[in-house]
Amino acid sequence: MKLYTTLSHLVDIKLFTHSTLRINCFSAAYYSQKPLWGKNKPHRKVKLNLYFDSMADPAAEKLLAPLRASVKAQGDFVRKLKSEGAPALDIKAAVAELLSRKKLLEETELKLAPNATFDRARMEDLLKRRFFYDQSFAIYGGITGQFDFGPMGCAFKANLLHAWRQFFVLEEQMLEVDCSILTPEPVLKASGHVDRFADLMVKDVKTGECFRLDHLIKAHLEKIAADKKTSEATKAECQDICIKLDGMTKVEMAHIMKKFDMKSPLNGNDLTEPIEFNLMFGTQIGPSGLVKGFLRPETAQGIFVNFKRLLEFNQGKLPFAAAQIGNAFRNEISPRSGLIRVREFTMAEIEHFCDPNDKAHPKFENVKNSELLLYSACSQMDGKPAEKISIGKAVSTDLVANETLGYFMARIQQFLVRCGVDPARLRFRQHMSNEMAHYACDCWDAECLTSYGWVECVGCADRSAFDLTQHTQATGVRLAAEKKLSEPIVKDVVEAVPNRAVMGKIFKRDMKIITEALQMLNINEIETLENDLQSKGEYPLRIGDQQFLLTRDHVAVKRYKATEFVEEIIPSVIEPSFGIGRIMYSIFEHNFKQRENDEQRTYLSLPAIIAPLKCSVLPLSSNPEFVPFIKSLSAELTKVDVSHKVDDSSGSIGRRYARTDEIAIPYGITIDFDTLKEPHSVTLRERDSMVQVRLPLQDVAKVVHNLSYNKEVWSDIESRYPKFEQQENTA
Amino acid sequence: MKLYTTLSHLVDIKLFTHSTLRINCFSAAYYSQKPLWGKNKPHRKVKLNLYFDSMADPAAEKLLAPLRASVKAQGDFVRKLKSEGAPALDIKAAVAELLSRKKLLEETELKLAPNATFDRARMEDLLKRRFFYDQSFAIYGGITGQFDFGPMGCAFKANLLHAWRQFFVLEEQMLEVDCSILTPEPVLKASGHVDRFADLMVKDVKTGECFRLDHLIKAHLEKIAADKKTSEATKAECQDICIKLDGMTKVEMAHIMKKFDMKSPLNGNDLTEPIEFNLMFGTQIGPSGLVKGFLRPETAQGIFVNFKRLLEFNQGKLPFAAAQIGNAFRNEISPRSGLIRVREFTMAEIEHFCDPNDKAHPKFENVKNSELLLYSACSQMDGKPAEKISIGKAVSTDLVANETLGYFMARIQQFLVRCGVDPARLRFRQHMSNEMAHYACDCWDAECLTSYGWVECVGCADRSAFDLTQHTQATGVRLAAEKKLSEPIVKDVVEAVPNRAVMGKIFKRDMKIITEALQMLNINEIETLENDLQSKGEYPLRIGDQQFLLTRDHVAVKRYKATEFVEEIIPSVIEPSFGIGRIMYSIFEHNFKQRENDEQRTYLSLPAIIAPLKCSVLPLSSNPEFVPFIKSLSAELTKVDVSHKVDDSSGSIGRRYARTDEIAIPYGITIDFDTLKEPHSVTLRERDSMVQVRLPLQDVAKVVHNLSYNKEVWSDIESRYPKFEQQENTA
Repeated sequence: MKLYTTLSHLVDIKLFTHSTLRINCFSAAYYSQKPLWGKNKPHRKVKLNLYFDSMADPAAEKLLAPLRASVKAQGDFVRKLKSEGAPALDIKAAVAELLSRKKLLEETELKLAPNATFDRARMEDLLKRRFFYDQSFAIYGGITGQFDFGPMGCAFKANLLHAWRQFFVLEEQMLEVDCSILTPEPVLKASGHVDRFADLMVKDVKTGECFRLDHLIKAHLEKIAADKKTSEATKAECQDICIKLDGMTKVEMAHIMKKFDMKSPLNGNDLTEPIEFNLMFGTQIGPSGLVKGFLRPETAQGIFVNFKRLLEFNQGKLPFAAAQIGNAFRNEISPRSGLIRVREFTMAEIEHFCDPNDKAHPKFENVKNSELLLYSACSQMDGKPAEKISIGKAVSTDLVANETLGYFMARIQQFLVRCGVDPARLRFRQHMSNEMAHYACDCWDAECLTSYGWVECVGCADRSAFDLTQHTQATGVRLAAEKKLSEPIVKDVVEAVPNRAVMGKIFKRDMKIITEALQMLNINEIETLENDLQSKGEYPLRIGDQQFLLTRDHVAVKRYKATEFVEEIIPSVIEPSFGIGRIMYSIFEHNFKQRENDEQRTYLSLPAIIAPLKCSVLPLSSNPEFVPFIKSLSAELTKVDVSHKVDDSSGSIGRRYARTDEIAIPYGITIDFDTLKEPHSVTLRERDSMVQVRLPLQDVAKVVHNLSYNKEVWSDIESRYPKFEQQENTA
Repeated sequence: MKLYTTLSHLVDIKLFTHSTLRINCFSAAYYSQKPLWGKNKPHRKVKLNLYFDSMADPAAEKLLAPLRASVKAQGDFVRKLKSEGAPALDIKAAVAELLSRKKLLEETELKLAPNATFDRARMEDLLKRRFFYDQSFAIYGGITGQFDFGPMGCAFKANLLHAWRQFFVLEEQMLEVDCSILTPEPVLKASGHVDRFADLMVKDVKTGECFRLDHLIKAHLEKIAADKKTSEATKAECQDICIKLDGMTKVEMAHIMKKFDMKSPLNGNDLTEPIEFNLMFGTQIGPSGLVKGFLRPETAQGIFVNFKRLLEFNQGKLPFAAAQIGNAFRNEISPRSGLIRVREFTMAEIEHFCDPNDKAHPKFENVKNSELLLYSACSQMDGKPAEKISIGKAVSTDLVANETLGYFMARIQQFLVRCGVDPARLRFRQHMSNEMAHYACDCWDAECLTSYGWVECVGCADRSAFDLTQHTQATGVRLAAEKKLSEPIVKDVVEAVPNRAVMGKIFKRDMKIITEALQMLNINEIETLENDLQSKGEYPLRIGDQQFLLTRDHVAVKRYKATEFVEEIIPSVIEPSFGIGRIMYSIFEHNFKQRENDEQRTYLSLPAIIAPLKCSVLPLSSNPEFVPFIKSLSAELTKVDVSHKVDDSSGSIGRRYARTDEIAIPYGITIDFDTLKEPHSVTLRERDSMVQVRLPLQDVAKVVHNLSYNKEVWSDIESRYPKFEQQENTA
């Protein structure tokens, strides 16, 4: 799992990139004192950029062509510098320029797309009003970057996680684990998080108020650029800096702060120099205050440190995948964008361990024809748009590094689309060499287009043997697997064998370290030992500060041939890593709809499998004759695992349907006066089409069960039962 | 959720009681340096005390009678003191004596029970070897009190939580929420945790090593008592102190430390005075270091602070229940007893909000005949054993405070037994008045008997209006509901009404606080104001340090009659709170079995609904003809949501069955040479009875699905298909 930071030297830590997520305001107050109850924000419409194939639109393409050419020219220049082995600083500067041109192209592309007006404020109002989620501890003023999921959000999340478990863990027979959140320092030291998981910030020297440095610079320069009195040259400079901000170093940013004389935007106070702020929450484990620990910033490390046990559980065989669903924590300097950048979040991560020399996947055949919208590093350098391509072709042409990576990308797309992500607003963007970790072979992010821009929702990386190697080095426990050799190898073995009986008496407690040291000698050292024993009769063995004089009585050199059937390998890791909150947010945006003739009537078209509740039960009126039918129907629905809501409140059927549409209930059963007659029957309504059918009461629980668990689709039901024609608003 | 502490003045904080969990060793080293790989502990057999009805055993009862009488005498004495209004200190001393007598009775009772030898070390070895769970970060030396669940433990846990959600949330239509773990200080200040959630500890003055005080005293005195040179009088004193330790104050414990001159057991260093150590993990939220937060010590507070939104979601109606599954954290001074006392754990909590004057439950009728083993506070004071009684009778005789509490107790029992808790080792123990929180009306703990003694697994308390009141006071946000009055009430209203137009001009920005202050005046104050205005022409309104002079132009007193249709009530909360790790541990112990004729063959008889995997698929041999059958069967099982494991490793069928028995797989399908013939058939084996049937291949997925999800039972299958007689060990 990856999180974007502004420090370009941090690229070898796994981070979530959000370069596309910058928005124009920033909240310095992370602990708002204002209660949120009943506050109605003014509705502000946000333009939604629906992704579109600009190549198919000649007018748009004409405008984009020069921008594409400009990106390509710079891309070629970077390639040239690299091939010539130019100085690192020159390459860095060229890459920064490339990124700024690329950003301009992408932003223009988004602006040119046919815009649907998406009303984010209205959606957020709905999500809050119906308690999908809201700020945590709101009655205490709230904490930004933390959210509580209410009944609807919690059920949606639980269903999404359940679907994930079915789709990945069960179907692929992965080994799911559930590891500790509190993590001792040495583990995160080895993973690199203690030293490098940081963002730059500055502090108000008087009040201690903190600001994330890139946010501060951006806000400051945008204010200057918006001022009428500012010269065109300065405006251009400000815009240029904003575009290049992502790739800047600490020194460069400090320089800009000074140049523009930036102060606290709250009170004009002076600010400190930039400080690297580690994003992990620290605490002490145990009462002594001596054992430092952190809340894990990702779930992956729990899997890596358990690798040996997992391999054993899998009877020593590769490949296998482990998976984990759990919470992780990042102490963001200024959380923002709702569920997208938060301090506490749920992740679902997979670590697929395989032979580094064989990354084929047995089920790749099943997905090879899946078409994905791929935005390759090459296209990004050449100013070309993303393109649809089958994953089979992508792997066979080496665009995607290997079958296993390709298999997971296809499965990620299947999963996201099944859960409600709009396939037209989903792409896979490859990391360019400057953003990819040094040890990674290839990395693709599944990005969803939202009103915040393209949001990285799933990262999918080939992390090579990095993590296992790091923990092996830190602990001395070899996190490796054995691979059967195709043919046994006969090896010459030279060994320094201690005479334990004799040595034990002399060296006593030191015997253990001496034996270990002898085992560690390499072939040259053993030969020196052999020569020394023969020529001088003794050999000085150094261990740390100590020295032990060994004689021919103590140790003998033996030579023999050994046959090896296995070799030790450190597995490669392919890591698909899901940000659950971001996926949820994207699904909300992609499924927030307004009725055609009534803008006020909004609803969420979540797929049934993840909808919080599967079905509503609505008596036409408060007539007591309906009550026994409601009770028995509710019991029957519970029996077949259909979560449902009985809405016997007053209000017309139409109004109650509208209420259930808001919380995404896909099916509605109405009990009316015809229900009372024999044979008993009810109506069943589908949320998106608002089509209703009439069917026997005894069928309905089973039908809704089948619809809810993807065993039948609505058209099956429509063809089987007569349509019920009464209009909602007249009912 | 409640956690036991040694501070008797902490009774009004929700704590998990483990007075029954004390064991005789203690681990001061909370950060063990020893790696755990492949370490085989010597098998140590622990006597398992199966709970039994001692009343039915005249010989045992004869031995217990004097102990019962001694408890009753002291119980009566305590009652007498209370009825006479004796000094608090006298009552406290008498209660301590009562507790010590009660403890002796209960321990004797357990000793007299018919003992099955339970081999805890062997069970722990199985759980570790098959990676149900193990110490976290073991390759880094491990952290005590933290555990990672491997594939089998994780699947078991996920199934248990899924069952919980089905059983409680869906069936009772509860409002499930998912709230933040990181909690700002003011929330936990209001709940009482910041001030009172503490254990006593002492520190080594030189090394800083910490010891939990009660553990230290107990270990020290037991060592003295075990010494042959110790006099009988001192031995008796030591035993007496150990028994009374639970109820002792800080001062009393400090006195004992001094009297016995206790030093660090590790190195004989001096120890500090007792220190109250808060058990919450602290951290800072945000970069400034100024916002203090804690990892939540229970999930309940997240529900309470969201009460208003939940009530709104429920359309303002009472009663309703909210639920939450999530992790909580407690920085135990010395964690121990495996999963029972840990630093990081999963809870599932329900908060049922209801009218304080109406705690009837609409579904109580459904459970009223359920028999529960109740160990009432009275029985505990009278030295009587727990008794089986129907929950209907328990509520009607006021033994259990109300229907809602009784309903949940019955449902808790149903749930635990369904998930594998042995009903013979389950009891409900009522809190005695000395251990119950001052605000609670009644509290019963569901306790499971394990080799550690009776372990509290679920708490079930009527917490009255305590929590909502606390958060209302802390925030000023009224966490209350409206109740429709049976008849409208007409009230005389007296109001001080400001003349906004006039006052606004004079008081400007202060207008708001003045208006608020006027609204807050009580009837007497309004009358004073009215008199003052009439007599003096002005009234000094004090607000904090300020004073505002009001005249008749500013404010007028109005009197009128108002009809009220609703009254405001603060709901009562009934809280069932499940410790998931403890339930898992109890289920492990209650389901760890050995085959009758082969002690070495151990297995776990987990019920199918919570078993990690539902079914194994075993080809008789590595014959390639079996492969297509395995593949298609595996696909079919996945389609009907049956998690399964294909074991095509070498080894006899019998050995492979034994392996799947160890990981609790309830059903095994074997593909043999008869499978190859048409009509294709397979054998199906049930784990506990080891009975096998032969059935058509096409039936088997559906059959295992039905068995796994409680839709059919094994006897249905046995009666439908022919028995397959081949013996396991010969197959």
